[in-house]
Amino acid sequence: MDVIAYMQSVGDAAKQASSHIAKANSGTKNTALLAIAEAIHEHREALASANAKDMAKGKDNGLDAALLDRLELTPARIDGMIEGLKQVAALPDPVGGMTDLDYRPSGIQVGKMRVPLGVIGIIYESRPNVTIEAASLCLKSGNAAILRGGSEAIESNQALAACIKQGLAKADLPETVVQVIETTDRAAVGELITMTETVDVVVPRGGKSLIERISADAKVTVIKHLDGICHVYIDSDADVSKGVNIAINAKTHRYGTCNTMETLLVNEAIAEKILPQLDAAYSDIGVELRGCEKTMAILGDINAATEEDWATEYLAPVLSIKVVADMDEAIAHINRYGSHHTDSIITENYSKARDFLRQVDSSSVMVNASTRFADGFEYGLGAEIGISTDKIHARGPVGLEGLTSQKWIVLGDGHIRQ
Amino acid sequence: MDVIAYMQSVGDAAKQASSHIAKANSGTKNTALLAIAEAIHEHREALASANAKDMAKGKDNGLDAALLDRLELTPARIDGMIEGLKQVAALPDPVGGMTDLDYRPSGIQVGKMRVPLGVIGIIYESRPNVTIEAASLCLKSGNAAILRGGSEAIESNQALAACIKQGLAKADLPETVVQVIETTDRAAVGELITMTETVDVVVPRGGKSLIERISADAKVTVIKHLDGICHVYIDSDADVSKGVNIAINAKTHRYGTCNTMETLLVNEAIAEKILPQLDAAYSDIGVELRGCEKTMAILGDINAATEEDWATEYLAPVLSIKVVADMDEAIAHINRYGSHHTDSIITENYSKARDFLRQVDSSSVMVNASTRFADGFEYGLGAEIGISTDKIHARGPVGLEGLTSQKWIVLGDGHIRQ
Repeated sequence: MDVIAYMQSVGDAAKQASSHIAKANSGTKNTALLAIAEAIHEHREALASANAKDMAKGKDNGLDAALLDRLELTPARIDGMIEGLKQVAALPDPVGGMTDLDYRPSGIQVGKMRVPLGVIGIIYESRPNVTIEAASLCLKSGNAAILRGGSEAIESNQALAACIKQGLAKADLPETVVQVIETTDRAAVGELITMTETVDVVVPRGGKSLIERISADAKVTVIKHLDGICHVYIDSDADVSKGVNIAINAKTHRYGTCNTMETLLVNEAIAEKILPQLDAAYSDIGVELRGCEKTMAILGDINAATEEDWATEYLAPVLSIKVVADMDEAIAHINRYGSHHTDSIITENYSKARDFLRQVDSSSVMVNASTRFADGFEYGLGAEIGISTDKIHARGPVGLEGLTSQKWIVLGDGHIRQ
Repeated sequence: MDVIAYMQSVGDAAKQASSHIAKANSGTKNTALLAIAEAIHEHREALASANAKDMAKGKDNGLDAALLDRLELTPARIDGMIEGLKQVAALPDPVGGMTDLDYRPSGIQVGKMRVPLGVIGIIYESRPNVTIEAASLCLKSGNAAILRGGSEAIESNQALAACIKQGLAKADLPETVVQVIETTDRAAVGELITMTETVDVVVPRGGKSLIERISADAKVTVIKHLDGICHVYIDSDADVSKGVNIAINAKTHRYGTCNTMETLLVNEAIAEKILPQLDAAYSDIGVELRGCEKTMAILGDINAATEEDWATEYLAPVLSIKVVADMDEAIAHINRYGSHHTDSIITENYSKARDFLRQVDSSSVMVNASTRFADGFEYGLGAEIGISTDKIHARGPVGLEGLTSQKWIVLGDGHIRQ
């Protein structure tokens, strides 16, 4: 079967299934989620042997150790998927909720109802557990899902797809509510992101190059973030110990995450006091510092930060540091070089905190908190399908609500327009 | 100057201006709105003479009477623009509002702040008063605007642009907060809808062909609706007089609007009772009926509705009527042939009302009310920039809130992630 025709049929089936899952009640959806969890538990051996095939092929194909690690479905990761399904089942159902039902002068009562988006396409890379994460969030939010994982994980993903089908069937939901693409042909992605008739939104999860390619070619709306160039700005009115703790945490808690700080901005009034303390702490941990001229003047023997550094997401134990004259310069730097992901000010000054919150154009803006908090779980969303640095539809961590929309409802009693 | 370079410079200027208007307080924005109103009042003569040039050229070019009517800036329409500006000034400012600031187990306080989208492009046709409507909504919602009106209204729009600049200057806002494109070159539109670096969203207002063209070529997100194929479904449990009143109002209150009913669905249990009454009323008003076989069997001498009729927005005194076996058939018809705009059920049955609200996949779903209520003013938005039948970002009438987004804010007290 040719891949275009295959994807069209997947899209049509998803669109059909979307009306079933949109009206499914919370109990049915939770039954399906828990039945998928059970099916995964039941088929641990089958999952392990499917995953072993992927791992063997990956080794033959010379995949690097980091990629093989992401590809592996250890017993602990299988437990994690089961636990994740239970957590999503326990989350409140966002669908159908009605709000703001106010009466208007005409006598009609107008409000909003939260509704699913319809069909969601998720494109991801080697981690097979994303299959279950994405399926569970789409299902709970009343959407049909089309999942396209990395070709290196095809055996694992198909084994997981079988568990999902079993769970959906147990809840009397169509198996096509969640479809895992069966081909590794790259043309399938090109088709998925342009099927505007059947697909409502696409969420790519993975490296920057994958997401850039998808964004460039997509006709369907894409919920995405490319970069996480996050900043901490330590203000002249900062509590120094809060500044040090947060700057260390934001950089070193984990290096490879999108909410890790990549550039530290320090007010010049406090720079001589705080930078040596930070230098000592970073050097103990092994973080390479790259500074502006003023930073270098204070810290001495560190590398110079180039123009390119300010726009780089290191994802590594490297940090660029710039001394700024005031908060306005910090905000201007963030809005220019940042990626609109997450930025934090450290200050005890009320007015500056308030202005920073308003003026920084990022999906998460913080006061006296580590950028590492920008995360669906930490924000109370229960789980996240991804993070959006765009402004349309959803910004920041996207949970169940980000996979829904609101329609208007009007309740009348025979009302006609005058 | 070549048009591409011109549009790029307009985009850059808008992006720069957007950070100024984003942080402008409500008082400043209202000062600008009222100063624009004053400037329009002051320059009534200049506006009239600019408009006279457009009208004369339009007549020379053989524009039809309807188009010339839309193009004309009568004194009443100038009053209307002034009144509209005052109304927008009186609306609450959506920008900066913070909601849902809840504490999390980690101790951080997480909430959302409403923020402007950034730069909004509006593409419209002959009506010059849209220039003021669009400018005022973008300004109040803290966005920079790039306005591209019809080439036949270029003189009128440039005269209005001068009033807008005067008002912005009076409030000490950059003149580039609202830019009205100075060229009639069509390439300007092509550029505007693909400048993803500087333009955040495009709202096309006009005929279906304009909007289809823009949607097909846009790289920037488009807020739009193509069609208004709205339905009223009269259920077997309908109050007959409510059904008759609403069916007449929804079709005949105005023929040319997108929220006018184009297809009437009638439950077969009530069809013989209600259709003859409706036939008599429609025939008095002069509405042509086109029916399915069952409708024709009841009403006799009317035209047959073809497959094409079910998918047609007549915008005229024509109505297609289909008799359906039950509500499920009605909902299936609406979700298949409708345009996801506005659909209403007439019923006294609680459960059916509830199911209809949930299952109809339209931007406005109503019970016992005329589809003609689907409108920003009627919904209490104060004004609308347009109506969206898409599900992403905004559905239904789009007012100030639809021109904004929400970013996350996190308030901490030195919190670091464990």
